[in-house]
Amino acid sequence: MTTESFRILDEKSLIEYIKATPSLASKLGNEVENLKIKEVGDGNLNFVYIVISPSGSIVIKQAIPYVRCIGESWPMTKERSYFEATALKRQHGLSPKHVPEVYHFDRAMSVIGMRYIEPPHIILRKGLIAGVEYPLLAEHMAEFMANTLFYTSLLYLTTTQHKNAVAEFCANVELCRLTEQVVFSDPYKVSEFNRWTSPYLDSDAEAVRNDKALKLEVAELKSKFCEKTQALIHGDLHTGSVMVTHESTQVIDPEFAFYGPMGFDVGAFIGNLFLAYFAQDGHADQGNDRKAYKAWIIDMVAETWNLFYKKFTSLWDIHKEGPGEAYLHEIYNDVELWELVKQKYMVDLFHDSLGFAAAKMIRRIVGVAHVEDLESITDPAKRADCERRALDFSKNLMKKHRTFNTITDVISTAL
Amino acid sequence: MTTESFRILDEKSLIEYIKATPSLASKLGNEVENLKIKEVGDGNLNFVYIVISPSGSIVIKQAIPYVRCIGESWPMTKERSYFEATALKRQHGLSPKHVPEVYHFDRAMSVIGMRYIEPPHIILRKGLIAGVEYPLLAEHMAEFMANTLFYTSLLYLTTTQHKNAVAEFCANVELCRLTEQVVFSDPYKVSEFNRWTSPYLDSDAEAVRNDKALKLEVAELKSKFCEKTQALIHGDLHTGSVMVTHESTQVIDPEFAFYGPMGFDVGAFIGNLFLAYFAQDGHADQGNDRKAYKAWIIDMVAETWNLFYKKFTSLWDIHKEGPGEAYLHEIYNDVELWELVKQKYMVDLFHDSLGFAAAKMIRRIVGVAHVEDLESITDPAKRADCERRALDFSKNLMKKHRTFNTITDVISTAL
Repeated sequence: MTTESFRILDEKSLIEYIKATPSLASKLGNEVENLKIKEVGDGNLNFVYIVISPSGSIVIKQAIPYVRCIGESWPMTKERSYFEATALKRQHGLSPKHVPEVYHFDRAMSVIGMRYIEPPHIILRKGLIAGVEYPLLAEHMAEFMANTLFYTSLLYLTTTQHKNAVAEFCANVELCRLTEQVVFSDPYKVSEFNRWTSPYLDSDAEAVRNDKALKLEVAELKSKFCEKTQALIHGDLHTGSVMVTHESTQVIDPEFAFYGPMGFDVGAFIGNLFLAYFAQDGHADQGNDRKAYKAWIIDMVAETWNLFYKKFTSLWDIHKEGPGEAYLHEIYNDVELWELVKQKYMVDLFHDSLGFAAAKMIRRIVGVAHVEDLESITDPAKRADCERRALDFSKNLMKKHRTFNTITDVISTAL
Repeated sequence: MTTESFRILDEKSLIEYIKATPSLASKLGNEVENLKIKEVGDGNLNFVYIVISPSGSIVIKQAIPYVRCIGESWPMTKERSYFEATALKRQHGLSPKHVPEVYHFDRAMSVIGMRYIEPPHIILRKGLIAGVEYPLLAEHMAEFMANTLFYTSLLYLTTTQHKNAVAEFCANVELCRLTEQVVFSDPYKVSEFNRWTSPYLDSDAEAVRNDKALKLEVAELKSKFCEKTQALIHGDLHTGSVMVTHESTQVIDPEFAFYGPMGFDVGAFIGNLFLAYFAQDGHADQGNDRKAYKAWIIDMVAETWNLFYKKFTSLWDIHKEGPGEAYLHEIYNDVELWELVKQKYMVDLFHDSLGFAAAKMIRRIVGVAHVEDLESITDPAKRADCERRALDFSKNLMKKHRTFNTITDVISTAL
């Protein structure tokens, strides 16, 4: 992997690159003289090209060695594309209906070629802002999470396989450090990158920085994030990492993937649903008070958790005599004991999920990176009102996360 | 690392090996024509040679690719010597008074050359069987554990350093699997290698295999062992891994070293002290009822924990503005909060230690490998009586480990 073999592509050089790469050209029916190319990268990190020929389409994603939206003054290893490609392939193998297929990976160029998730797919976050219902969302996300988390954990793997995979993903440390900084650290102190809707939330932001009980909890969550190598997690499973239609749910952008606590994925998704929920009052207008939609989002929270619980424990039941080494069948093959085992594991996973959901919410309100759900509320007083309610909910959730027994109990604190 | 470069040494070929290795010959004052060599390996795995010249001495340890006391039918990677050498060097750097210095490591030959821990040092376990008091034992073990655990954790390291080290030691998976099998699995089911003092403990052993609450707890401990990459732990810190005189305490044999929960080291030591305690009645005779010695051992348990607590938190205080990234000073620099942080961390570490202590005790009574403290009680009825009391204590400890507040509370259940 020499730096000479890396160059940043543009729409022109990309055509030459595709022509020289059979695995990509073939997906375009080899009709490479008449390509339509559009760069659509709207995240902070990478270039994303949609490439369309008369008979096919692909997406090309290239990581560059710095944070794109900041510039060369903020380096960020382009090796992240290796971890994204590896994670995509693993996730696709485990949840093929919900992950785009990887056609090509060029490590030197930090280029991934993958299936184009075509219109009418849109980013889920935008759909939530627009008030669109997705009847299969909970089912699909539950399936994606159950499959990707169960099969990469010691409930299915041997410790040899597990440790090997842990070691491999240890190298994705730079992306982990980004999360450690912006999720688990910066919001809890004065940091130059923090921002919030000011002056409305000035004292709310200060209260976060001075909340002892909150800081105790976030320290424990940070340690879990850094130390608990439970499964191969997506690492950034917010509603901007999901593309949807009424029938289809596709999970993208796993460049933060590493071996960490399962609850960080479940919590990221649930936390972002809650952010969408609290933002709804800011999108209400004469035609639509968003009350029914708020109820739908709340239903999604409950359904996602409950379906995830069901699917995850079903996989575990199916594989209880399987290769996984955490709960050997010869030890746990008593009917009553097996139920206790599953309950205990899922209660811990539930609590982890709630803690991480809270952390992900808090950082989006008083940290560096906010969410469009709230940012798009143009009236700052209205936005601050939504943000304060989200913040109060999530602070309480973080401090009490280990006391909740059911998702219904959690939801009742949001209503 | 080709297999052609590996050969099993004996006393004769070892002389040639030493002559060809300046870093070893120099420790012998280069007086290599008149070496006294004795093979003393009494563990299960390796050859250990004491090499003495007129002007110096060294120990040579060689790992062979199978379990020595079983034979080639039980392979065990000789790469374990790499992890032992690496851990020894790291631990010596952090606790030079309590770890023998490594002079030489030959990866191809799986040979470590190190300082000879000379007489009157004996293995601590033997001293405990003999009823010998070691006034500095608690202080020294507390210092060894505090230093080696604190400085290899995120309380002192950056996550970059930490993940790098975690990845390196993931490769010591074979030794970890041995522990997963013999400590966390086999005692809780019918396994061909299990043994116990029969018929006296037949129903006690069966009770362990049928104890649902116990199995629930050991599952959680096993997951922590496999997933919680908290610090570089020794991995087998029983009283056979410690050599002592009245003034000196040396910790040896860290071939099981990897990134795991700190409580596994603290628990291993404390658990083995308790085993020594429960064995005392089996060593009592006309001249010595061992009552005073039992009280001394109990004092050691309390003193070890209390001194460890003090030293560990002192290191943390000293380095609170240091490089460690788990508790950034800018977040946790409130006096009251800082005390709460330390208390919470140490309570969790205390509970982990108790759970692992229990696991280490249970496996030594109904598992494959027992301890000389109990095995040397020749009268089986007397032995079984000591073992049953140790077993009842440790089963209760495992089931209630998260409820104890102080070491005194724990000790009271042993009296």
